[in-house]
Amino acid sequence: MDLYATPIDIGTRAPTVILNTADAAELGVHPLDRVEIQHDGSTVVGIVELTDELVDVGELAVTRPLGHIDGEVTVTIAPNPTSASSIRKKLDDIELEADELDAIVTDIKWDRLTDAELSAFVTSIYTNGLSRAEIVHLTESMVAAGETMTWDSGLVADKHSIGGVAGNRVTPIVVPIAAAAGVTIPKTSSRAVTSAAGTADTMEVFCDVELDIDEIRDVIAETNGCMVWGGGVNLSPVDDKIIRVETPLSLDPPGQMIASVLSKKKSAGSSRVVIDIPYGEGAKVHSLDAAREMAEDFDRVGSALDMTVDCAITRGSQPIGRGIGCGLEARDVLDVLQGNGPQDLRLKSINLADMLLSACDVDDTAAEILEDGRALESFREIIAAQNGDPDVTKDDLPIGEYTATIEAQRSGLVSNANNRLVNETARRAGAPKDKGAGLTLAVRVGDAVDESSVLFTIYAQTEEKLDEAVRFARQEVPVRVSGPDEALVERY
Amino acid sequence: MDLYATPIDIGTRAPTVILNTADAAELGVHPLDRVEIQHDGSTVVGIVELTDELVDVGELAVTRPLGHIDGEVTVTIAPNPTSASSIRKKLDDIELEADELDAIVTDIKWDRLTDAELSAFVTSIYTNGLSRAEIVHLTESMVAAGETMTWDSGLVADKHSIGGVAGNRVTPIVVPIAAAAGVTIPKTSSRAVTSAAGTADTMEVFCDVELDIDEIRDVIAETNGCMVWGGGVNLSPVDDKIIRVETPLSLDPPGQMIASVLSKKKSAGSSRVVIDIPYGEGAKVHSLDAAREMAEDFDRVGSALDMTVDCAITRGSQPIGRGIGCGLEARDVLDVLQGNGPQDLRLKSINLADMLLSACDVDDTAAEILEDGRALESFREIIAAQNGDPDVTKDDLPIGEYTATIEAQRSGLVSNANNRLVNETARRAGAPKDKGAGLTLAVRVGDAVDESSVLFTIYAQTEEKLDEAVRFARQEVPVRVSGPDEALVERY
Repeated sequence: MDLYATPIDIGTRAPTVILNTADAAELGVHPLDRVEIQHDGSTVVGIVELTDELVDVGELAVTRPLGHIDGEVTVTIAPNPTSASSIRKKLDDIELEADELDAIVTDIKWDRLTDAELSAFVTSIYTNGLSRAEIVHLTESMVAAGETMTWDSGLVADKHSIGGVAGNRVTPIVVPIAAAAGVTIPKTSSRAVTSAAGTADTMEVFCDVELDIDEIRDVIAETNGCMVWGGGVNLSPVDDKIIRVETPLSLDPPGQMIASVLSKKKSAGSSRVVIDIPYGEGAKVHSLDAAREMAEDFDRVGSALDMTVDCAITRGSQPIGRGIGCGLEARDVLDVLQGNGPQDLRLKSINLADMLLSACDVDDTAAEILEDGRALESFREIIAAQNGDPDVTKDDLPIGEYTATIEAQRSGLVSNANNRLVNETARRAGAPKDKGAGLTLAVRVGDAVDESSVLFTIYAQTEEKLDEAVRFARQEVPVRVSGPDEALVERY
Repeated sequence: MDLYATPIDIGTRAPTVILNTADAAELGVHPLDRVEIQHDGSTVVGIVELTDELVDVGELAVTRPLGHIDGEVTVTIAPNPTSASSIRKKLDDIELEADELDAIVTDIKWDRLTDAELSAFVTSIYTNGLSRAEIVHLTESMVAAGETMTWDSGLVADKHSIGGVAGNRVTPIVVPIAAAAGVTIPKTSSRAVTSAAGTADTMEVFCDVELDIDEIRDVIAETNGCMVWGGGVNLSPVDDKIIRVETPLSLDPPGQMIASVLSKKKSAGSSRVVIDIPYGEGAKVHSLDAAREMAEDFDRVGSALDMTVDCAITRGSQPIGRGIGCGLEARDVLDVLQGNGPQDLRLKSINLADMLLSACDVDDTAAEILEDGRALESFREIIAAQNGDPDVTKDDLPIGEYTATIEAQRSGLVSNANNRLVNETARRAGAPKDKGAGLTLAVRVGDAVDESSVLFTIYAQTEEKLDEAVRFARQEVPVRVSGPDEALVERY
């Protein structure tokens, strides 16, 4: 059918075309069917939506992803992509070949799959898992579908935490240690999805984080390291599209996560990677056995991709550091770099940095680099290169002016500090949008407290958000205290 | 955030709202996030899309499902629906309770789930199955989510085939037999999705099939039976929405299918149901054991819903009847009603009708009602009540004027007639849109043929479609002939 196409300014994800209902009936297509649009000698695929009035008979409105199409087009029914049948195979628990995964990744890249198909792919991985061969092929396909960075320096390193632990802001400490030791470390991080802050959100307190690839090259050339938002660069973009459908369903299948992490690192040109796998109650990985299994997968898949991947299995059942929320975490980071700060954050950062240095055959220890001030100097250089103030002090960092303390209701021992509830309390207070919002923990699990001891202090930038965070914290009790004579976790 | 809402004529499935990118950033929402829209004292949920130009800052475009919203509104971020976490549970293979399934069905009814979530629900059922209790609860929820019909007549019966067999047009024979015997049979049927014709498409050759519930009542009052398109009435509308995402992925999990079928029958007020379960190579159900298991599920779930469900396990490895395609199937139907026609179609219709009559305690046999002309008389009454010509003869039925025959390439025995390839050949010829398009089979599996014997004849309404169907048939060989000395199915 010949139609006249006009761009319409709607930013749909998929390449959507809006047809008049009468034309759709004539073509025999329904909403969400695919059509092929021939225009100027090339053919693209569009997903159908219908209208009675917005688009006249004989016309075709094309949304922003197809905005280059304008004028006479020929529209025909398109077949379902072959990747749809591969997804069906995976649902039937049949292992997919490299070319099948490649076709799926290519179709995701070009937004040729509907949300329903993309979701089926993710759930098939969730329910049936991925073999190591599949993880390797998926990672390779995802790398090939995006931009890649290469470096003159022989050894390019990176670190990544699989997440789930509140606070845990080790990256802004590990990266300057590595950079100070001469290791090239092009670190990209995410923003918060359900947590109180992502590393990118916290770094934004100090400097710009939305850099393009050329700007990243300049920063690295100057300082060896960078700490930027991964969403600003086109490294493994298919991974971002997969995460978009995983998030609403809280799906994060291990095989997919390994492919996700390693595709980002491989695309960034890293060959030495340290992965932080926190485990325990309330972490993403619940048991030490599961953490070991994941570490083994990371190691094997990394080898197949010519990367040395070392895993640090860490305790993840409570937050790391004192501050939760961008500005409050930034204070912890600056404290540690200046030789103070929370001991748990300092120690974990040193351990991870030592693994990274050792993988890169560096002789200096992380503790030396931290203690003699080289890490702080490197940190200031990196934030200067990212347009931040290198002379930043704690007093410059944002902190909410409305505060409230949450106290123990009894004397006893701190028995639990729940990552999710701690994050959510900080979010109610305004994190990550309000840079000064969040909370600071006054205790760790195992600490003895008296009745009325402060457990944590909430900071907010408005009174309403403070009240909401206090209300939430009183109701959900993110930090629990048990009597010294209580052995029961729960009566059922 | 206060915005000014204006309806925009785009018929999205989900209630979509289009925000200016700047307002979305201020609100902290991304594409596909949910927002709550307060308007005139009531609150509705919308799914977010973004634009830079179509909608100004401070404005909100609402698509057709939200077309009643106009003027000042307050927009806030909406939480994910609780049914999303129930879907997650089902993905983890945890049995869902009645209230959880009810919440999912309600959210599907009101289009509150994204396609990604709906797809995850279907794939969770596909990979983890449904317990009988879950099927019962799902069916009850789907019935409650739509309109229901009630009848004065004590015994209301229905029949249904789970599909997958080409031709197989038994409904227009069984319904008039039952109606002639005094049984109330409000039969709704589907249109073709991947087959050459649905029962509704074939009946449309004779009469109107898009009747509303009041019109159906009138037809039933006059004739005891009807044969209409199910999509025209609001019986179990949630089922239709689930099928929409199942179709592109070719997913049709048994538990979901049982809930689908029985929710339609229950909504139509039927208490005696006969289910046709064809099994065999190329059918939906591959083995006799699987067919028996499904029959047992139908029986148990039916009992829990106060319905008597009898299952007919039938052979499904080849088409039933001679004609494939609306007009050609209609000829077979008229032939059988007039005492002739393909024996396989006639026999199967009689067997199914006898099960239905016996479930309704009718003494007459189907063969009697067919042979003495009462079934034909009832058929003519029904099509008259549905605004068709009661005096229709075979010469009135559409038949493509372009024809070609496909012949055996060797002498031997017909070893295979593949349902899917037979349907696809008919579709290439123009079915179901072209009412005269399709094919007529000249042989059945097991028939001895000479070289150059006609296997089937293709009918089309244009030469192009005829050529395309012939090309497809020559390449894919829907009907295969083996030499009498060949025992191998395949060399591998």
